[in-house]
Amino acid sequence: MQKRAEGAGPPGLRMAVLGAGEVGTGWAALAAAHGRRVALHDPDPAALKAAPAAVAARVAHLVKHGLADERLAGRGLADLTMHRLLADAVAEADLIVEAAPESLALKQTLLSDAETAAGGESRSILASSSSGLHASSLGTALQRPERLLVIHPLVPVELIPVVEVIPGPLTAGEVVDAVAAELSALGRAPVVLRKEVAGNAVGRIAAAVWREAIDLVLEGVLDPAGLDRLVAEGPCLGWAAGGPHLTYELAAGDEGMPAFLDHLLPAFESWWGALSKRRSLDAAERERLVALVSAAYAQPRDTLRIERDQRLIALVRALSETNARR
Amino acid sequence: MQKRAEGAGPPGLRMAVLGAGEVGTGWAALAAAHGRRVALHDPDPAALKAAPAAVAARVAHLVKHGLADERLAGRGLADLTMHRLLADAVAEADLIVEAAPESLALKQTLLSDAETAAGGESRSILASSSSGLHASSLGTALQRPERLLVIHPLVPVELIPVVEVIPGPLTAGEVVDAVAAELSALGRAPVVLRKEVAGNAVGRIAAAVWREAIDLVLEGVLDPAGLDRLVAEGPCLGWAAGGPHLTYELAAGDEGMPAFLDHLLPAFESWWGALSKRRSLDAAERERLVALVSAAYAQPRDTLRIERDQRLIALVRALSETNARR
Repeated sequence: MQKRAEGAGPPGLRMAVLGAGEVGTGWAALAAAHGRRVALHDPDPAALKAAPAAVAARVAHLVKHGLADERLAGRGLADLTMHRLLADAVAEADLIVEAAPESLALKQTLLSDAETAAGGESRSILASSSSGLHASSLGTALQRPERLLVIHPLVPVELIPVVEVIPGPLTAGEVVDAVAAELSALGRAPVVLRKEVAGNAVGRIAAAVWREAIDLVLEGVLDPAGLDRLVAEGPCLGWAAGGPHLTYELAAGDEGMPAFLDHLLPAFESWWGALSKRRSLDAAERERLVALVSAAYAQPRDTLRIERDQRLIALVRALSETNARR
Repeated sequence: MQKRAEGAGPPGLRMAVLGAGEVGTGWAALAAAHGRRVALHDPDPAALKAAPAAVAARVAHLVKHGLADERLAGRGLADLTMHRLLADAVAEADLIVEAAPESLALKQTLLSDAETAAGGESRSILASSSSGLHASSLGTALQRPERLLVIHPLVPVELIPVVEVIPGPLTAGEVVDAVAAELSALGRAPVVLRKEVAGNAVGRIAAAVWREAIDLVLEGVLDPAGLDRLVAEGPCLGWAAGGPHLTYELAAGDEGMPAFLDHLLPAFESWWGALSKRRSLDAAERERLVALVSAAYAQPRDTLRIERDQRLIALVRALSETNARR
């Protein structure tokens, strides 16, 4: 793997990001904020034109809140390049991060084109940001499927620490190790899954929570803002401090998980039977959900986002400072 | 409702707490930390003997981390009384908080006994801490079921802000209002549900998350510590900042929920079909789960709890300071 050669540069991989949407802009900001050289590609001229300011704003936000080093970030932003042509973006990349819309055919073609453009001698790694597609299907047209894996970030990419790392059956171990090391160097918390399963781990947790959240709102138990507050300052605050297993390990006083199961497994089992069995959202339900969310959050979306990001940054800093003291 | 009469005292209700376990000790600590007069009852002499030190330790913890006023807390602790006899505990209480084990028959009897002991002229409120039982079944033997409701806290009670408030069909509106006001005065975030449903909202969210968490671990996708980290520093950190509905409202750039649904509803629908359908945990699965959790968290439980509480306090403070700046 080709490392950055200049003496003044940080170690780390040169990154090409394919796609200048929410996820791609986030990846570019994260990497640039850590002084990486980033080449951003998007076939849409309008997206490409808007990208430098969007990336710079995200980087400035990280610097302002003490989540990135100003000098490194300045260099990363100075090195950031925009490319209409895929081949130009991937030419010198060690790590090619695909961040295109969630379509198997589109991503397969893009990854294959990127591999070809990188050249036959390339040792570059291909990493898809897909939330649900897997290397085993994304890489069927590749010459070197062992260089492909999935790295699924949450959004905002530059703020939420966890990145789900999902190797396929063909992914080389050294590729997993290199990507996990680079993600750690970018301040992320990579969590490597041992196998490909539908939705991975994040998608399954998210799908389970959102299904109940939708049903509770559509059943009229509470409105979207009430549900959000209940989840945010209730179970999620506890789980953010400990995760579900540790939470229940500690929930029954000094006796641990066996005592918790003795006391509360019957209740959980009765709730498991009562959970939503929803497998789709029909047009009428969709319309009601959109209307209820829209009524609950009537402020301008920019205001909501700024306030949400302030809370998120405070939480991210609180957690990282606490962990650093251990 | 009888308010505290002394000029120097804070407004608020005199509280009787029935049960000196994890939840009852937490309620007593929370109320005492806010200068309330608390009478704690437990029929078990050993529990009652251990309670004052346990409550004092929790209160000291709140004061140390700036989550309670030292002077008020000192008065609350000085006023804390322990009662082997139920009648002594409830004699002067405005708010009687039941925190007994999760058994319908036991709670029904205890609430009925408490109502009788409080006397025929009492205007006291009965509040059950049940996580899953409802006022409509808990209150069948009461003379004044309109004075009963459920207030379901999470644990640790004194740290997690949300309290789920679930009135029954007979609960008086003024009782809901008085309890919500008192919980707010105690620094809680009361969220009132519009109807009784199995598991309420917290239980349904918790059951949905833990079911997936258990299955992902039993399927070998990742170990309990990996799953916990993934949930803690991934989706839960995002939801703690915004809740699921707001998260998805903001996840698709500037276009809101409709764009999010256009892009990602198909993925969520496919995951809904793949989610666990588990309705119970058999003996062999239970044994494997306990062993996996125990292996993932091999440190002494006290150490785990202290570290978890440090993270939780940092998160609670971060969120409350950010909200206070708005």
